[in-house]
Amino acid sequence: MISREFKALNYLREDELEQIHLGALAVLEGDGVEFFSREARDILKKAGAKVKGENVYLPRELVMEQVAQAPAEFTLHARNPEKNVVIGGNTTVHAPGYGSPYVMDYIQNTRRSADYKDYIAFTKLCANSDNFDVVGGVLVEPNDLPDYIRHAKMFQAAVKHSDKCLMGSAMGAKKAQECLEMAGILFGGVDQVRKKPALISLINTNSPLQFDPRMLESMMIYARNNQPVLFSALAMTGTTSPVTLAGALVQQTAEILSGVTLAQLINPGTPVVFGSASSIVDLRTGDLAIGSPESVKMFSVIAQLARFYDIPSRGGGSLTDSLFPDAQSGYESMMVVMASVLSGINFMLHSAGLLENYMTMSYEKFIIDDEIIGMVREYASPMLMDKENLAVDTILRHGSGGNYISDEHTFKHMKEMRIPIISSRERYGAGGDFADTAQRAHEYCKAVLQGYQDPELDENIEDELNRYITNISEEK
Amino acid sequence: MISREFKALNYLREDELEQIHLGALAVLEGDGVEFFSREARDILKKAGAKVKGENVYLPRELVMEQVAQAPAEFTLHARNPEKNVVIGGNTTVHAPGYGSPYVMDYIQNTRRSADYKDYIAFTKLCANSDNFDVVGGVLVEPNDLPDYIRHAKMFQAAVKHSDKCLMGSAMGAKKAQECLEMAGILFGGVDQVRKKPALISLINTNSPLQFDPRMLESMMIYARNNQPVLFSALAMTGTTSPVTLAGALVQQTAEILSGVTLAQLINPGTPVVFGSASSIVDLRTGDLAIGSPESVKMFSVIAQLARFYDIPSRGGGSLTDSLFPDAQSGYESMMVVMASVLSGINFMLHSAGLLENYMTMSYEKFIIDDEIIGMVREYASPMLMDKENLAVDTILRHGSGGNYISDEHTFKHMKEMRIPIISSRERYGAGGDFADTAQRAHEYCKAVLQGYQDPELDENIEDELNRYITNISEEK
Repeated sequence: MISREFKALNYLREDELEQIHLGALAVLEGDGVEFFSREARDILKKAGAKVKGENVYLPRELVMEQVAQAPAEFTLHARNPEKNVVIGGNTTVHAPGYGSPYVMDYIQNTRRSADYKDYIAFTKLCANSDNFDVVGGVLVEPNDLPDYIRHAKMFQAAVKHSDKCLMGSAMGAKKAQECLEMAGILFGGVDQVRKKPALISLINTNSPLQFDPRMLESMMIYARNNQPVLFSALAMTGTTSPVTLAGALVQQTAEILSGVTLAQLINPGTPVVFGSASSIVDLRTGDLAIGSPESVKMFSVIAQLARFYDIPSRGGGSLTDSLFPDAQSGYESMMVVMASVLSGINFMLHSAGLLENYMTMSYEKFIIDDEIIGMVREYASPMLMDKENLAVDTILRHGSGGNYISDEHTFKHMKEMRIPIISSRERYGAGGDFADTAQRAHEYCKAVLQGYQDPELDENIEDELNRYITNISEEK
Repeated sequence: MISREFKALNYLREDELEQIHLGALAVLEGDGVEFFSREARDILKKAGAKVKGENVYLPRELVMEQVAQAPAEFTLHARNPEKNVVIGGNTTVHAPGYGSPYVMDYIQNTRRSADYKDYIAFTKLCANSDNFDVVGGVLVEPNDLPDYIRHAKMFQAAVKHSDKCLMGSAMGAKKAQECLEMAGILFGGVDQVRKKPALISLINTNSPLQFDPRMLESMMIYARNNQPVLFSALAMTGTTSPVTLAGALVQQTAEILSGVTLAQLINPGTPVVFGSASSIVDLRTGDLAIGSPESVKMFSVIAQLARFYDIPSRGGGSLTDSLFPDAQSGYESMMVVMASVLSGINFMLHSAGLLENYMTMSYEKFIIDDEIIGMVREYASPMLMDKENLAVDTILRHGSGGNYISDEHTFKHMKEMRIPIISSRERYGAGGDFADTAQRAHEYCKAVLQGYQDPELDENIEDELNRYITNISEEK
């Protein structure tokens, strides 16, 4: 988690921000949103929305009334209460990459299909570093597991190898319900989970202006049970949204607000997050360009819009379009993380491991991103400004010239510096062969995985969870 | 030049900032600063400072009175007036790397001594990109030229191969005077140069709390002739300053303010910049760690302090401790550039090319940094928020579902995206071998240098400059 004391950057002027807000309300009233769920449409209709076919037209009063019910911040509970996190306010909570079907093989310099072993290894890397707060979800796609059991096995791995906060499956009602029940085993009953929200789930809109049935059904289960929902638009400029950034923001704001409205109608006060994974598309190739500065502009505005609606925001990530853990992957990921944190993004999915936009997870990139987040965290941490740190007396005592190296003040504070995990401060001439960043990350990663020890987990809980999972059936 | 419309980040609270200010004034009164120039001490003494040996004790009233005379912003003039830049306000002006004695040989993966051919090549790279505003100065050290003529040959190369703003030599009175006279040839007389400041020079303090004679003598020549001065502290925490960041900031603020005071006493209204190249030292090795987040914290505060004193700031750069143009060099450089720009740094020296802190210039890293600055520039450029860009009508017309790719609005705006110079948006499976960022930068650099054409330069001016340089003598 990154915590800052300085005020977040406001990218737009207030009157500009309001233009996006007013545009979104006009879209919700004029175009409406397609909800591919009868139940969702019925709830919205009952609250005063006009429904025509699958299209739901949302009056602005309804939207604003419901958005006002969402909390400005909320606590996400971990099985180890010391790992609980508050989402909202002046902090950024980090979750790793999500959904990649491939893993990069560093030695072979190619990619391969991801599997459950990778899922477990990445869970350990997350658990090992203070920079990550949330595990679980689709950290990487375990393609070797049958679909009906994947969510449960991922949940199991996340619980066994880490004691941090968890994500819930967004793949339909059955899986969401099963995640909820597994969380119940962990927290002493589903009742307890309702009181202490413990599963955050990623509910994407289907841009432009649609919600698919699978996502809607899981969302409704989570909302009914008071579990936090990350509503995230994935506007791809010029394909699933207008090509202009302001237009994409208008459209995605409409989408997110409609989701938030539904969640609040189901359960007033449902913790929700105003989210975006939107990106420009490079229209020379039709590919996403998630490491582009234009995409980061949108994240900055998303953070600001969320503050306007007084709910937490989601955006950013260690995003890159590079295929390798090279210079581009470094500068793109740092750009997105730094600008998103300084803009006040509260929840950062995709915080580590991604290469080739969302397609590939890389062990080496994961470690590099761990370093990047650690650096931004150090940048954002307060500069100590007390008498001892201001050191006026020390300067007066020392005077001009000379060297502070042997000063008692230096000796007292010299160990307060952040020590990088893989960044090099070697010089030429220091002797020996030098490894580049990716190679150092490769070695570091191996060492972490070799030395990793699972956190304690009550045997009874583990057994009960295993039994529950064994009994999950393939039928719908 | 990067230009932003949003407000700069204020890293510290105002009361914290004031603690640094008050600490600096206490140091100036209590410790004083050693000025290793009789002339400088005499000027300060005459204005009311107490002088003891080489030490000058500056009363706070004197300091604040003089600092108030410095302009909040000023124009730096180029031989091509279209390339003039304003330093101060909401912009960041970029100058390339400065002072490296080595150049990296990418093919051999090693470093070698820099020479005049490198100086010319890097000048062309600067001139070629819109992202750089200032050339000249010690872009890289031409070790193959005799010392007495280096500054003149560097000036000549900067003028011949570029029409951008120039830097002046800070290596003593004789060289500063010669730079001024060469600028006179370029601008129609030294009188004109006084009216239209055209040489910005880097005057480092000698931390802790000293100014060396060479820098002081050049500074006094420039100030007397109304040329802008970058006063820059180079506090290295725990060696040339207190180990704590707040303490280093107190000391460097004292140093810079004392320089600004002297410059204003010499010529009220001398354009000055409140600058820092300070960095933490990794006390495990004693080496600078300029790519560290702690160093960027100091840049953010420097920008804020400069706003407090209402003068432009200098800080940041594409700084890295890496030896290679690898991931670390990418994330460190992006961190420093992004956070410095968002903090409102006005002048960024070392904007491109550096590896191994300040020791080595790299052609590949130069191109990578050009990309980084281009990205941050795009991020900072205003998001267009007019009706056409908000696209509410387009969204209403389009409705839910479908694809914007064939929409007329997309067609109209699709070419407004920034095209990267070397970043890749390729995907696996697109066929062919993929080059990493450094390799692409290597190819790009070769192409730029092969195709480069010098800007026009009046033959008479060129001849006169050549004659002037031929007549420079080795004697002091």
